[in-house]
Amino acid sequence: MLAYVVDAKEGGVLRQNFPKPKREPGEALIRVLRAGICNTDLEILKGYMGFQGVLGHEFVGEIVETEQGASLPVGQRVVGEINLACNDCPDCRAGGVVKRNHCRRRTVMGIVNRNGTFAEFLTLPVVNLLPLPDSVSNEEAAFVEPLAAAYRIVEQNVIKCPDAVVGVIGDGKLGLLISLVLRQQPHSRLVAFGRHADKMALLPANVEKVLVDETTNDTFRDQFDVVVEASGSPSGIMLAGDVARPLATIVLKTTCATGRDDSFNTAPFVVKELVIIGSRCGNFPMAVGSLERKEIDVSPLLTRTYPLAEAPAAVKHAGQKGVLKIQLLMDET
Amino acid sequence: MLAYVVDAKEGGVLRQNFPKPKREPGEALIRVLRAGICNTDLEILKGYMGFQGVLGHEFVGEIVETEQGASLPVGQRVVGEINLACNDCPDCRAGGVVKRNHCRRRTVMGIVNRNGTFAEFLTLPVVNLLPLPDSVSNEEAAFVEPLAAAYRIVEQNVIKCPDAVVGVIGDGKLGLLISLVLRQQPHSRLVAFGRHADKMALLPANVEKVLVDETTNDTFRDQFDVVVEASGSPSGIMLAGDVARPLATIVLKTTCATGRDDSFNTAPFVVKELVIIGSRCGNFPMAVGSLERKEIDVSPLLTRTYPLAEAPAAVKHAGQKGVLKIQLLMDET
Repeated sequence: MLAYVVDAKEGGVLRQNFPKPKREPGEALIRVLRAGICNTDLEILKGYMGFQGVLGHEFVGEIVETEQGASLPVGQRVVGEINLACNDCPDCRAGGVVKRNHCRRRTVMGIVNRNGTFAEFLTLPVVNLLPLPDSVSNEEAAFVEPLAAAYRIVEQNVIKCPDAVVGVIGDGKLGLLISLVLRQQPHSRLVAFGRHADKMALLPANVEKVLVDETTNDTFRDQFDVVVEASGSPSGIMLAGDVARPLATIVLKTTCATGRDDSFNTAPFVVKELVIIGSRCGNFPMAVGSLERKEIDVSPLLTRTYPLAEAPAAVKHAGQKGVLKIQLLMDET
Repeated sequence: MLAYVVDAKEGGVLRQNFPKPKREPGEALIRVLRAGICNTDLEILKGYMGFQGVLGHEFVGEIVETEQGASLPVGQRVVGEINLACNDCPDCRAGGVVKRNHCRRRTVMGIVNRNGTFAEFLTLPVVNLLPLPDSVSNEEAAFVEPLAAAYRIVEQNVIKCPDAVVGVIGDGKLGLLISLVLRQQPHSRLVAFGRHADKMALLPANVEKVLVDETTNDTFRDQFDVVVEASGSPSGIMLAGDVARPLATIVLKTTCATGRDDSFNTAPFVVKELVIIGSRCGNFPMAVGSLERKEIDVSPLLTRTYPLAEAPAAVKHAGQKGVLKIQLLMDET
C-alpha cells in the first residue's frame, strides 16, 4: 500500500509498496479516509521519540475487516484512540481510560512502536474505536484527536467556579482548538494570547485576543484563575506564571525544552504556590459529541488538503509559518 | 542597635548604630534571641529581590513592648510569621492565613520592604506572633520558620493514600527538614535523594538514602507517588519528573533558574500528566507542635552559632559547601 514513513536513514519518505497491515485478534482493519498532520509529526520527523514506521496519529477511517460479532460492523466510519495499552500491567488491570493512556508498556500509533495513519490502511484494537454519526464530516472527524486533547482540560476539571478568568497561551492549531472548547465552559472572561493576529482572528468575537509583546506579562500580571499553556515555548510558560493569580492553576498542554538563549525560572510558581497540571490525550466521546452538536466549528482551522501521494509536499507545507491544519486525503483517491 | 544590613552599594555590612525600630499600633517590639541564616538570605546578598535593610527572617525573640491588653504579655517568648498582609485588599478581606500569605501588597520581613531579624530588635504585628512552650529551646525555635515551610507540604495534602511512595530531592537544610517531617506522615516508602552522604547520614535509619548519580533517573523511573523537589536545581526538577509515576504529584519547594548549560524540558510532566504544586511559607502552629511533642529533632542540622557581632563571618560560613544551619546568637550577649 501507499504510506508515508519515517526511515532511520532517509527521514520522511513516501513508500509505494509498504506492507498492508494484518488484522490481529481483537483488532479491526481500517481504510483511512483522511489524516491530519500535527506538530508532533513534524517533531518526530526531526527525531523526536526515535520513531520509525508509518507517521501520523490523527485520522478518520472506515472498517473493512473486524472480529466476528464485533459491535461496530464493516463499513462503519470511525475515529480511534491512539494509545494501545498492554492490558496486562497493574495500571491496565486497575482499568479506566486514563490508566490505559498511562500504561508504561503502551504503544502509541505513529509515535511509539506502532504504525500510524499516513497510509491507505491501519489496524487498531476494536476497543479503541468510536463510531461517527453521519452529521460529522470526514474533514471534521480528522480533527477529533486534537479536539479530544483540548477536551482533556475539561475532563481534568481545572475550572472550579463559574466566574473564572481563563487564559489560553498559543494561537497554533491546538491553542485555537482549546480556546474554542473553553469558550463553551463556565468563565467570566476568556483571553487568547498569541503572536499572530490573523490566526486569532479565526476565533469568535467573544474570545478576547491579546497580541503578546514585551509588555504583556506586566499588563496582565496576577489576573487569571486558569491559564492553559499551548505555545510550547519557555516564554509561554513564564507568561502563564506571570499572569496567573496566586494559587491559580496552569495547564501544560504542550511540551518544550529550554535552549541556551531561554531564560526560565520557577520563582513565580513557588512564590504564588501555583498548581501546574500536565495534560495529554483526551476524551474522544466529548470531542465527537461537540462536533455532532455543532458546538465547535473546526473548519476555519483547515488550511489545505493534499492527496496521500503528495504527503512530502503536505508535510513541508505543514511546517511553514502561518499554516494551520493540513490534512491528507484518501477518501477521494 | 547592632544590625546586619544589606546596603545597595556595600552589600552585607554590620552596622553599630542602626535605628532601633519603633512599635506601630497593632505591633509588638521584640528583642531577638536567635536568628537562623537561610539560603534565601545568601541569595538576597547576591541581589535577589533587590532587598535593602536588615537581613534575616528566621528568629526566636521575647516581647519587650506591646499593645495594652494584648493576648501575649511582655516577656513572652515568641516566633513570628514573616508575611505582613495589607489587610485591605480583596485577598486579605477574604481572610485565612493562606490568603494573607498571598496578599499582593504584602511586605515580607527581611525579604520585601521590611527589616528583618539579624538585629537586636524587630517589630511585628501581634497577629503574626505565636507563643513558645518552655519545652522548646531557643535553638529549636529558630528552626520554626523553615520547619513550617516543610509542614506546608502536609497542609497542601499531597499524600493521598497510606501506601504512598514518597521521594525528597535535596539534602540541604530544607530538604532534610522535609524528610524529617514526611517521615511522620503516611507512606509505604520514603527515599531521600541527595549528593552528600554526610548530610543524609543525619536522617534516621528508616529514611532510605540514595546518592544521586547519572544512573538514578533510570533506576527509580516511574516509581513515586509524591516527589518533593528541594534541591533548587533544574536537574532536581528533571529527576522529580523522571522518578514520578504517571499522574503523580511533584511539590516545588525551592526556586531555581535555568542557566546556559542546563537542559530542562517539560515532556515528562505533560506526557505523564503530572501535577506540580508550588509550596512556600507554612504552618507555624504545626511546626511548634511537632517540636513540643519532640517528633522532630532539628539539633543535628545546626552546624555552628556566632554572636551577632560576627554576622559577616557567620554569613560567609553559611555559604560554604557542606555547611547546614548557622545561627546568630543574641541571647547570651
